[in-house]
This record gives sequence, structure tokens and C-alpha cells, in this order.
Amino acid sequence: MPRYAFQIEYDGGPFSGWQRQTDHPSVQGAIEAALARLEPGPHTIAAAGRTDAGVHATAQVAHVDLQKSWDPFRLTEAINHHLRPHPVAILACAEVPEDFHARFSAGERRYLFRLVQRRAPMTFSRGQVWQVRNPLDIDAMRAGAAHLIGHHDFTTFRSTLCQAKSPLKTLDEITISEQEIPGGVEYHFRLRARSFLHNQVRSIVGTLERVGAGSWSPERVGSALEARDRAACGPVCPPQGLYLAGVGYPEDPFA
Amino acid sequence: MPRYAFQIEYDGGPFSGWQRQTDHPSVQGAIEAALARLEPGPHTIAAAGRTDAGVHATAQVAHVDLQKSWDPFRLTEAINHHLRPHPVAILACAEVPEDFHARFSAGERRYLFRLVQRRAPMTFSRGQVWQVRNPLDIDAMRAGAAHLIGHHDFTTFRSTLCQAKSPLKTLDEITISEQEIPGGVEYHFRLRARSFLHNQVRSIVGTLERVGAGSWSPERVGSALEARDRAACGPVCPPQGLYLAGVGYPEDPFA
Repeated sequence: MPRYAFQIEYDGGPFSGWQRQTDHPSVQGAIEAALARLEPGPHTIAAAGRTDAGVHATAQVAHVDLQKSWDPFRLTEAINHHLRPHPVAILACAEVPEDFHARFSAGERRYLFRLVQRRAPMTFSRGQVWQVRNPLDIDAMRAGAAHLIGHHDFTTFRSTLCQAKSPLKTLDEITISEQEIPGGVEYHFRLRARSFLHNQVRSIVGTLERVGAGSWSPERVGSALEARDRAACGPVCPPQGLYLAGVGYPEDPFA
Repeated sequence: MPRYAFQIEYDGGPFSGWQRQTDHPSVQGAIEAALARLEPGPHTIAAAGRTDAGVHATAQVAHVDLQKSWDPFRLTEAINHHLRPHPVAILACAEVPEDFHARFSAGERRYLFRLVQRRAPMTFSRGQVWQVRNPLDIDAMRAGAAHLIGHHDFTTFRSTLCQAKSPLKTLDEITISEQEIPGGVEYHFRLRARSFLHNQVRSIVGTLERVGAGSWSPERVGSALEARDRAACGPVCPPQGLYLAGVGYPEDPFA
């Protein structure tokens, strides 16, 4: 059975998350249903990151085994056709070796978080950013973020529901950029690591927003990390600003 | 009665256009209804450009006369509050002299058209771009656009319903830029003129897309213009990629 990898973009708004659920719409369920129109199922696709309800992706990666040998272009077109009208799109497809696994072969995940500061309500990007109304100090947020880079026990910044065996993770990058938008400022947080704990990005961005607003000192981020105590975390920010923006493999399957 | 000018952003998708209509939702109607919550109406606001159904704005300008003297910040906040949940936002507000008129004082209009070329369906920017699936040649589109710069009879590029007295207009600028997006390319057409004829931008972009696709030679844009015949125009493109992106006045009311 040939194995295929997909690069997938989706608006997470209408979904209860990546993972298939019996009574709720999921991204996985939508793609598996599209695949079932091409070959009798059931199909099970495995993804690099199981995004939560409302979380988006610009470059999720998933794989599936099919019975037939497909031309990747034709397979992409056929799945995209059957995915309508869901806001899910296959952007790339490649046949991969049978030992490729979208989740276990991944050596790096990249997330983008879009935070908008403006007083006027959002119009075009409603549901695609987290909006706050208070001004933010980017230098303070960067100083706070610096405490999190490297290998740490991230117990403070993971959900109590997190099922990872260890809270030890290495955060390779947090960069924060800003650009003016009409009526405000949009901040992009980019985080990169081999893997993340459950709610880690949202816990970090929610905490850094408090630093940007002046409620927290940058140093408090360091003390919160050292506390290794979930109660020391700032507020977890909402999902709609979060995007799974890239997955790295030893060899790029889509190159 | 003090006069106030507003800079307004809106997603035109849910509206039958800027202009108030009895039985259909309009941007003007939404803003006038919000104003009526602040001061007894009826209110009539006048806009720089009466955008068509489905057309967006990032910087529409409109003015209204109110009975009370308002602090512009508080007025903005109050209107935005009452505009919910419409995708319409007041981004700036200023008291202006009584001889300021959003439409008649305007000396320049700027439009942006977003055209996306990719095979996969849109997710996040659905309803905010015009999507085509065929590749486009930007150099050919630029060569075609060059024929339209300057003072011309634009009969070919205006709707037969256009109510302007004269088809003579001066197009000061058409620039086309491109940027890679996941799975495709996004083209931005920027047009600038003192004023535009009805459907002029959509007629021009629809024609230039045919040039980019290779169906039309760039020179045919020049012949179509010279024909002064609506039948010589290419297909008028759909409204959802069009944005009123700026209005210029002798003195910027929001400076």
C-alpha cells in the first residue's frame, strides 16, 4: 500500500479540533470522509500536530496509506474537490517511504500566534487573531520571552490535561515582530521546538501578553518557569490566533 | 450642528453595497442605525465611494452632521459598540469644517484588488479575494495596464448602468505586485484616480487577468480602450477582491 503525505491548510473555526470525534466536526474527519469518496474506507490519517478546537494550520502535515497508486497532483485535486465546502485545503502531496510517519518522523514544529492590539472590532480577520484593546510593549514581551528559550521543565506552561510523559522540552525560538495595521498593531509570535506540550504556546503567549500590558514584569516569566507550577502561569490565551505553521522532517517530503 | 468625518473598514460580503436600501442590508444602513442609538435620527451619512455589493473597504470616508458635540474618541467607541455584530469598524473620527464633504471634497480615490492564483480552494481569505486557477504572467499584465494610464475615454471599461456624465477620466496609477502564498501567488492591483466610473476597476482587472492568462495580448487592452465600446471589454471580475483602500483630501481630516 503506497503511503502519501499531505501539507494541509485549514481554518480551525468550524471544527472541534484536528482529531476525529463521533459527534463533532473535525479536520481529520473531513479529510477521511473525502478520502472515502476516492477509495472505500475506513481511512485513518495521522497528523504531525493534533491541533485543538479553533486552532488553525497553514502547514499541517499528515499521512495515509491508500490501496491504489495515485498521481499526487490528481490525488490533491480529488481530495480538495470532495473537501468542499469545508475551509480545508490540501496544498501539497507526495508519495513517501513506508517508514515515514507524519508525527514520529517530525523533528521540528513551528507555530505562529497572531495577536492584534486595536480598539475597533475586527472585520476581515475575525476568528483568525486574538484581539486585545490595551497597548503592548514589545520590548518587555521580548525580554519576558528570553527566559523561556532553551531546555526547561515547562510544567508551568502546560495544560493539566497534557499527556506527555515529561514536562522537559527545548524551546529553540521565540521571536516577536510587529506591524502596523489600520487602527492598531499586529504582533506575530513565532515559536519553534522539536515538540510542544499541550497548550504550551497559548500559555506562553497569554503570559507574555500580560508582560506587554505591564501587569507582569519580564522577570516574573522566569520565576513562573522556575516555579514548575501550573498556578504560576498567566492566563491561557484563546485558540483563534494560533496556527501550526510548519513541520520539519530530516528529508522534506514535498521538496 | 457639528460635522464629523469617519474612516471606515468593512467586509462587504454580507451587504448589498454601501448605499442604504429598503429591504437589503447595507453598510450605510448599519452605520445610520448605530448613530440612531446615540442621537434620534434619521441620520444621513455621505460616503466618498458608494461601493457595490460584496466590495470591501479598508479606508472608506464618510461624514455626518450631529446635534451634540462629541469627543471623537468617545463617538468612535460608541458607534463601534452599536455596530456589533456587523463586520464594520470606525477606525478614525474627526470633527471637520462644515464645508467638508466626504464625496465632493475628495481629490483622489485608491483601490486595491486582490487576485489569487492557486489550485487549492481558499480557506482563510474566502470571500476576500478573487481566485483563479490558471497561471498568470505579471509582465504581460503590466504591459497591458500601461495602455490605460493617463487621460482617456473609458467607455469600454464602464458599466452600461454608469451614471457619470462623462466617460473621460484620468487614471494616475496602476501598479501590480505579486507575492508567494502557500500553494500559489497573490497579485495586488493598486489603482489611483481622482474618481472612477462604475465598475471601472473590476472591468480593468477582469481584462488584465485575460492578458495574464495569455488569452489576450497586452496590445489588445489598448485597442479595447480606443474602441470606446463596452462590448470590447474583457469579463468584469467578481466584487470580492475589491477594496476601497484610501481617499485623499486637500487636507487630511484625520491627521
